[in-house]
Amino acid sequence: MKELLKFNREEYRENARVIVESKEIAEKTAEEIFEDGFKNIFFVGVGGSLAPMMSIVDMAKQFTTMPIFIEQANELLYRGNKNLNEKSLVITLSKSGDTKETVAIAEYCNSKNIRVVCFTKSEDSPLAKNSKYYIPMKHANGVEYEYIVLYWFFFKILNLKGDFEDYEEFGNQLKNLPKDLERVKEAFEEKADIIAKNTYDSDYMIWIGGNEMWGETYLFSMCILEEMQWFKTKSVRSSEFFHGTLELVDETSTVFLIKGSGKTRVLDERVEKFCKERAGKFVVIDPDEYALTEIDEKYRWMVSPLMVSTMLVDRLGFYFEKYSHHNLDYRRYYRQFDY
Amino acid sequence: MKELLKFNREEYRENARVIVESKEIAEKTAEEIFEDGFKNIFFVGVGGSLAPMMSIVDMAKQFTTMPIFIEQANELLYRGNKNLNEKSLVITLSKSGDTKETVAIAEYCNSKNIRVVCFTKSEDSPLAKNSKYYIPMKHANGVEYEYIVLYWFFFKILNLKGDFEDYEEFGNQLKNLPKDLERVKEAFEEKADIIAKNTYDSDYMIWIGGNEMWGETYLFSMCILEEMQWFKTKSVRSSEFFHGTLELVDETSTVFLIKGSGKTRVLDERVEKFCKERAGKFVVIDPDEYALTEIDEKYRWMVSPLMVSTMLVDRLGFYFEKYSHHNLDYRRYYRQFDY
Repeated sequence: MKELLKFNREEYRENARVIVESKEIAEKTAEEIFEDGFKNIFFVGVGGSLAPMMSIVDMAKQFTTMPIFIEQANELLYRGNKNLNEKSLVITLSKSGDTKETVAIAEYCNSKNIRVVCFTKSEDSPLAKNSKYYIPMKHANGVEYEYIVLYWFFFKILNLKGDFEDYEEFGNQLKNLPKDLERVKEAFEEKADIIAKNTYDSDYMIWIGGNEMWGETYLFSMCILEEMQWFKTKSVRSSEFFHGTLELVDETSTVFLIKGSGKTRVLDERVEKFCKERAGKFVVIDPDEYALTEIDEKYRWMVSPLMVSTMLVDRLGFYFEKYSHHNLDYRRYYRQFDY
Repeated sequence: MKELLKFNREEYRENARVIVESKEIAEKTAEEIFEDGFKNIFFVGVGGSLAPMMSIVDMAKQFTTMPIFIEQANELLYRGNKNLNEKSLVITLSKSGDTKETVAIAEYCNSKNIRVVCFTKSEDSPLAKNSKYYIPMKHANGVEYEYIVLYWFFFKILNLKGDFEDYEEFGNQLKNLPKDLERVKEAFEEKADIIAKNTYDSDYMIWIGGNEMWGETYLFSMCILEEMQWFKTKSVRSSEFFHGTLELVDETSTVFLIKGSGKTRVLDERVEKFCKERAGKFVVIDPDEYALTEIDEKYRWMVSPLMVSTMLVDRLGFYFEKYSHHNLDYRRYYRQFDY
């Protein structure tokens, strides 16, 4: 079996195993909350935790008429939202369970009798202590696992609402998705090395992606490349690229496009056609190049964000580190002191 | 009276005059639509036209529980949205009236019997021809006028819904706001020159703003600086800055902060405190530094986006052009050919 850079295969498989324990908890919680009833759903997060939420909220537009909102935790706390009340269901996620903004909004909601369901590592975390419902995320690493547990909860809700008949099949297939993701990692490994080597010293990177892929585009450029590699980036939606950013593209540009597998792939293709001819360095990250054996093709567009997450956060990130010699764990400010 | 760079004072005042003619039309249309009834509102635009919509949709969260969505036109067209149906009201804006994506979604809605109200220059434009309701935007120039006409329509709707009692006062005061905006331009003029001179040759600019100011932050960095000056930028919400982008800031950085006047100003202040000590060049654009005589202080937070729009798009943009010697009207791609 191929050795992958900084990849702990055993741990990854162990993660895949422990995360399955959350399936039943997520589904039972969904049932309990659905029986209680709610009028709207708020996804509330910050930074990287917003990425899977952005993806889900975009997907939901194809499934349901339920009123679903997405809010940055601090914005919601200070600005407020007239739709947030005792009939709301607030979904938060913080792996560590101590992200200040997320804990603060959970505390606020709790004090107002607004139900919070949190996805976090430990029941003893400040986040879980301020949430009515706790759904464990016991994996050590991997944004894809955050998606999977969120999916088990949210798509179960949609199923109960009558908006997603195939949930049982989808939910079960998700249990085995990590096997596919491991194969995606392997298939992408060499490419990741070449991409990083070719682009790590760019003075500016444009990252383009859209709709259900926007969360990953946003997360990888900001929370990984800016935060952990100090690369100067710009991220822009495929649909919006043509309303400004396109003028920057020429033979000196480094441009990345994250393609999706769903209905708006045509918007990504338009960007691809434009940039292929004009960008000095142009990299396409296309989940459709990778096989899925554990999950039906009809669900591909819904798991593409997870495939891209594992390719970028878990593979390309390490290869950037390899060439930049900038340790991914080093921070000069973030969580180093109060600011 | 002070001469301002590339400012046609007569035209500006004429704009302020002609735009008032749209007030009654906007309000009457709001009344007619309100009587007809609707279940939700979709703001649909692309690029720059999304900016005032982003601002309004954020503000609306403090006023109403009406379901309000904001969509990029092409994304909505290709992805769809289960909440979009015959009971929806779709609000579009395209100054020229021929923006492809906007015309396409209007055509689509029209074919599905979904009511479209468009804000555009001419009744004969492709956009107006595909819209049930047409609200004229007859001004020659100035994003602030787009805000004003949108406000007359949208806040009138809120008023009819019982969500904004003070509309009449606010709507009337808006008629005279351009007088204040002229004074803001004058007061900012010298500062704009200094800011541009100090920063135009930065290799990368970080633009930060949030909530009701996010639209302007997004628009100015992408639709003006990237499109018309080919400056490399990154725009990020004040609330999200601390989840990645902060790590980029050091003595070599050029950072701009657009402060708001509303409830989330505290999030801008947090950014200010952090960047003041660390960014090599740090520029604060603060609408609160400018007087308002035509409009009550209680509405300041709602007109701050217009103040900043006039300062940036109409003033700072010209000063960047002065120093960069890059003509604001020059495009190598945008609308130059099919892509």
